[in-house]
Amino acid sequence: MTKPAFLAPDFTRAPFAGAPDATFAPLPADGVLPEGFFSTSNLPTYVHVGGRWLAPERPRMDCVILKRHDGGLETIEPRRLKRGDLVAMGEAEDGSGGIVVYGEGFLGGGHSANEFRFMATEVSREKPVNYEELAARVEEERRAGGYLVWVAGPALVHSRARADFEWFIREGYVQAVLIGNAVAVHDIEAAIFGTTLGMSNKGVPTEGGHGLHMRAINRIRAVGSIESAVQQGLVTGGIMHTLVTCGVPFVLAGSIRDDGPLPGVYSDSLAAQDAMREHTVKATGAIFVATALHAIAVGNMLPAFHTRRGGPEPLMTICVDQTEFVVNKLKDRGTHQAFGVVTNAQDFMHVLRIYIERAREAGK
Amino acid sequence: MTKPAFLAPDFTRAPFAGAPDATFAPLPADGVLPEGFFSTSNLPTYVHVGGRWLAPERPRMDCVILKRHDGGLETIEPRRLKRGDLVAMGEAEDGSGGIVVYGEGFLGGGHSANEFRFMATEVSREKPVNYEELAARVEEERRAGGYLVWVAGPALVHSRARADFEWFIREGYVQAVLIGNAVAVHDIEAAIFGTTLGMSNKGVPTEGGHGLHMRAINRIRAVGSIESAVQQGLVTGGIMHTLVTCGVPFVLAGSIRDDGPLPGVYSDSLAAQDAMREHTVKATGAIFVATALHAIAVGNMLPAFHTRRGGPEPLMTICVDQTEFVVNKLKDRGTHQAFGVVTNAQDFMHVLRIYIERAREAGK
Amino acid sequence: MTKPAFLAPDFTRAPFAGAPDATFAPLPADGVLPEGFFSTSNLPTYVHVGGRWLAPERPRMDCVILKRHDGGLETIEPRRLKRGDLVAMGEAEDGSGGIVVYGEGFLGGGHSANEFRFMATEVSREKPVNYEELAARVEEERRAGGYLVWVAGPALVHSRARADFEWFIREGYVQAVLIGNAVAVHDIEAAIFGTTLGMSNKGVPTEGGHGLHMRAINRIRAVGSIESAVQQGLVTGGIMHTLVTCGVPFVLAGSIRDDGPLPGVYSDSLAAQDAMREHTVKATGAIFVATALHAIAVGNMLPAFHTRRGGPEPLMTICVDQTEFVVNKLKDRGTHQAFGVVTNAQDFMHVLRIYIERAREAGK
Amino acid sequence: MTKPAFLAPDFTRAPFAGAPDATFAPLPADGVLPEGFFSTSNLPTYVHVGGRWLAPERPRMDCVILKRHDGGLETIEPRRLKRGDLVAMGEAEDGSGGIVVYGEGFLGGGHSANEFRFMATEVSREKPVNYEELAARVEEERRAGGYLVWVAGPALVHSRARADFEWFIREGYVQAVLIGNAVAVHDIEAAIFGTTLGMSNKGVPTEGGHGLHMRAINRIRAVGSIESAVQQGLVTGGIMHTLVTCGVPFVLAGSIRDDGPLPGVYSDSLAAQDAMREHTVKATGAIFVATALHAIAVGNMLPAFHTRRGGPEPLMTICVDQTEFVVNKLKDRGTHQAFGVVTNAQDFMHVLRIYIERAREAGK
Repeated sequence: MTKPAFLAPDFTRAPFAGAPDATFAPLPADGVLPEGFFSTSNLPTYVHVGGRWLAPERPRMDCVILKRHDGGLETIEPRRLKRGDLVAMGEAEDGSGGIVVYGEGFLGGGHSANEFRFMATEVSREKPVNYEELAARVEEERRAGGYLVWVAGPALVHSRARADFEWFIREGYVQAVLIGNAVAVHDIEAAIFGTTLGMSNKGVPTEGGHGLHMRAINRIRAVGSIESAVQQGLVTGGIMHTLVTCGVPFVLAGSIRDDGPLPGVYSDSLAAQDAMREHTVKATGAIFVATALHAIAVGNMLPAFHTRRGGPEPLMTICVDQTEFVVNKLKDRGTHQAFGVVTNAQDFMHVLRIYIERAREAGK
Repeated sequence: MTKPAFLAPDFTRAPFAGAPDATFAPLPADGVLPEGFFSTSNLPTYVHVGGRWLAPERPRMDCVILKRHDGGLETIEPRRLKRGDLVAMGEAEDGSGGIVVYGEGFLGGGHSANEFRFMATEVSREKPVNYEELAARVEEERRAGGYLVWVAGPALVHSRARADFEWFIREGYVQAVLIGNAVAVHDIEAAIFGTTLGMSNKGVPTEGGHGLHMRAINRIRAVGSIESAVQQGLVTGGIMHTLVTCGVPFVLAGSIRDDGPLPGVYSDSLAAQDAMREHTVKATGAIFVATALHAIAVGNMLPAFHTRRGGPEPLMTICVDQTEFVVNKLKDRGTHQAFGVVTNAQDFMHVLRIYIERAREAGK
Repeated sequence: MTKPAFLAPDFTRAPFAGAPDATFAPLPADGVLPEGFFSTSNLPTYVHVGGRWLAPERPRMDCVILKRHDGGLETIEPRRLKRGDLVAMGEAEDGSGGIVVYGEGFLGGGHSANEFRFMATEVSREKPVNYEELAARVEEERRAGGYLVWVAGPALVHSRARADFEWFIREGYVQAVLIGNAVAVHDIEAAIFGTTLGMSNKGVPTEGGHGLHMRAINRIRAVGSIESAVQQGLVTGGIMHTLVTCGVPFVLAGSIRDDGPLPGVYSDSLAAQDAMREHTVKATGAIFVATALHAIAVGNMLPAFHTRRGGPEPLMTICVDQTEFVVNKLKDRGTHQAFGVVTNAQDFMHVLRIYIERAREAGK
Repeated sequence: MTKPAFLAPDFTRAPFAGAPDATFAPLPADGVLPEGFFSTSNLPTYVHVGGRWLAPERPRMDCVILKRHDGGLETIEPRRLKRGDLVAMGEAEDGSGGIVVYGEGFLGGGHSANEFRFMATEVSREKPVNYEELAARVEEERRAGGYLVWVAGPALVHSRARADFEWFIREGYVQAVLIGNAVAVHDIEAAIFGTTLGMSNKGVPTEGGHGLHMRAINRIRAVGSIESAVQQGLVTGGIMHTLVTCGVPFVLAGSIRDDGPLPGVYSDSLAAQDAMREHTVKATGAIFVATALHAIAVGNMLPAFHTRRGGPEPLMTICVDQTEFVVNKLKDRGTHQAFGVVTNAQDFMHVLRIYIERAREAGK
């Protein structure tokens, strides 16, 4: 919003000095431009005509520059032009073709010529997710004996990605899991009662369901630990079951919204931090799925690099969330290296798994 | 926010009159409840003790009701209780077990007993998407010779779901496509230049890329129509190519944000409405992906039912968007039947395709 | 998505039996309808003509029903009609005017006639916020000696609502504040250094700013407590300063993302819960601003009612957040009574204060 | 996600060569750091000790660097340190104090030292809105005889900002209004029936309300134009009434989701574009409120500059929306100069008006 001083360019210096005159070509048909036309942006633009630099009238983006019969230049929509009308030619915006787009002061300090562009925002649901590359990177960590730390929110359990997460654990893509009490509670409620927060896996609330997570917690407290519940056959499936049976370490961090808590939860948040950090110091990669609190907490602990091969290398940090907000918030809390995937947790887990399976199948 | 009058219950009437006394049972161990304990909600609750109805002190949800040594009742966290402490028992909230949850005036008019529940919001990213059922319904439409109308925004092209959409068209799941100029422009830019709005399919802006969609439009205008561009080999792949080669009808509706427009676009919005409606009157199902304007426009035209078998049947209406907002807005504009899928357009297309392929494979 | 059985109505029963014939009236001019026209919805609709119930062709909402010259009925856009064309009349949808909108099976169980409507979603940014009523309710709590519990996230400090929150504290609208370490840290960083997370109050990052919150924490640790920092003049303004000087109690709950923490923070989350609950049991109202974790935690502890006047009364629960998601999540975790205000925290605080000031001024 | 080559620094060159040894100071008390401590980031960091550059173990942000008794360096939380422990000192990250934060390859090309920072995202609800400056800029446009173009979506009418918008029109802050059919329809429905889409101004749906916007449209069609409706006393208040009575020009652009449309609406989208552009070429400022389609359409037409004083000056472009998404989308479509205000439309209008009124009052 700050308003800089007068921004008129100095035509005696680069990129203006020494530039040739712009060229113009006629339309081959009504509303059809000659190939190689100059496409406008919304930045101040100057066209060299007869040795003078002219600013076309009526500037706007996604248009062309018409040389009117009176010699004036006008920015105009192609659809309004007729056969034979003359439009400026070229793609260069740096004066080499007689046209300068002079963005200085309009696009921030470090920008150079040809800087006007679309889709510059870093994190956006409109950008493609390169699952091939994601899958390749995750697979590479597994093969190299890396240490992938997974951080997840309860949406992973609510939303039936449970089976996919179990697959990742069993197949060796998970070296540590950092979660809260709620993830474990919902997972165990699903294992014992088939519901999460009383909602069936079809997404329908069940009668009397609101107490089921309390009953699930109570049964674990009765047997003393999650590990005992698995060993005694009380919990026979799900994420916690798979972690216990595969021997993958996990940290259950407590919070003020916890019911119970389950045995094994660190109710002291500093003790939880200390336990979590013993995993982040070993991490060669991290995947955050559908969690704000835990993502930011782990992001705070996580270096932007690891030193597996002597020198520092970027530490792959993937943040999956339904909206751009959590990814940007994570970046704004210092975890600038986070690569945002803006999607639903369930779909992310399923698609990533499929791409990894395909790559392994192809690599056979 | 409105404040109703005094809400104290009348203990001489149902569900209070005739109820038995509540039962209590002791904790078998510190912090471990007896199986069958009563789990509290945040609604006014009354417990029948010695013929009197008592409201436990310190009410809150997800707790139990302790009978204190002084005879008083207290709502308390299970973790604070010791072996032998007495807690109220039962799951019934209608008085049949001596406990009444009296939500009248707190949960709206039509609610009955046992109404306190979690996860009641209709559209939520936290709810599971039942892709099996979605796939089954879409497959059923194809087999029954239904008329599936697809409505899509440019995210479908930006985000590499293009190949999946082509698959749906080729396989017979698409009877009409209602889109805007932008979808066709991005798709054709991708077909000719390999970019969308100048961004590569890896999500990286390219030098000089901001003019590419204008150059793509111009080439189509030069050959006169999208159909000609396909026939002459100018456009050799993508959504528009597949629609043309498969003979699936499409409507390109114009809008004020259009560049070009492409030949074939209805620049008059009423003519566009009329063209779109000739498809909605035939529809037996509709799928909206990543579009607000077109979803609401088509939603306005779309009955909530069709009459394939004589009487009215619900018209399957699926709305896929990154956030709950568009789905709720669509419902708030009258398309109450819309079933919301809150996810990324690319992932939706990929996962739905996989589930359909699996179902067809299994059905062989 | 579930597909009910055949839904054709039984014309021998209500609301069909005994209904009069529908009436029709001519258009007074091209595209201009007679006053009192029947406006369509997207639900199955039957019109009584000559003793028979006809379903108009081409159904859609926001249209009218034309009686064609061939006697057929057609749903059509008003703009397509000419002077003299006959359209169905009346507003009743229950058959009393010869037209039945038969939504059974299309709108869920408990719905009655005339149920098709727009804007039915409970929490939406598109709904007006009734600040007059909010201000009146908050003022009423103050006058009645109520106990208003405020729960806030760091956006309240980041976003310059600090001064407004201080005003609410000083004027007696705040009986307890439940926050995390981060709110206090940012507030004290602002008090000492004029920044939050190193960002100036104009929203600009400052050189070397990333360490300022650590330096602020360290200074408070050096003097032993927030109270000492206020008494010794180290902290001379802001939320924490106002709470200390006004003697309003606060609970600082720890979490795994905390730096420091500040002296006085409950690092044990169960101890924090216990401290918070001593305030929720006294609450007659609660206001949650820009926080998910704390809102849900406090929501879990908060009854939906209080009993100031003997019987249970609804406990005013206001949840302010930038998107509908947090409000719906809070409701989905059982705090169904929450009234959602979808806006920016800074603007909410400023506008609510202005409305209260105006009401007090008017009441003088 | 791309993985650069080995990134180990060359210690023989700047910023390493010639740097002094780092200094260390003891903690004055348990968990209390010496003033001037070095605060860590998550980037590769090297500390000069005894002429050697050491990378501290266990790197993370928001910590300090401990010199252990064994001479090793360790990144550690301050709370874990005791009185007398030695920590690295200084704020410089460029080697001048013996410590180098070597972000090269981790923060993108153009970054220099001291680049690690929080809150770097451009558009965020967490950033303060500087209403003083906004008000000053808007007031300055009015005084300078500028041409402010307002672009608005229906939320402005739904949400009771109507009265505030009328004030801006009457007071001379609005030179042109670019809207769609829906804004005018809802405004006129409110003027005639007191509802918008059948919802009362308290946010409650009314019985039979779903047809009211159709009845409102019909009445305007009956009198021939909005201007006639104002002159004949059919419409006696609201935005359209104020525009007509104040003689402020407006463009009503049609779209495929329009009912009616109202007389005066450009149903041809290219004609609408042409009409809109006659205002954007005069614009010295633009304010977009709660609209995606119209914001992007007008953004496409709007230069990033105007030339009131001979040379190009930035054209103030404010985009108000409930989420960051629309602002970022607008930027991604080329309107990079847009300044985002992430808030509710109603609150924005009210707060901006109050700040302008205050500034005018103060300026008297």
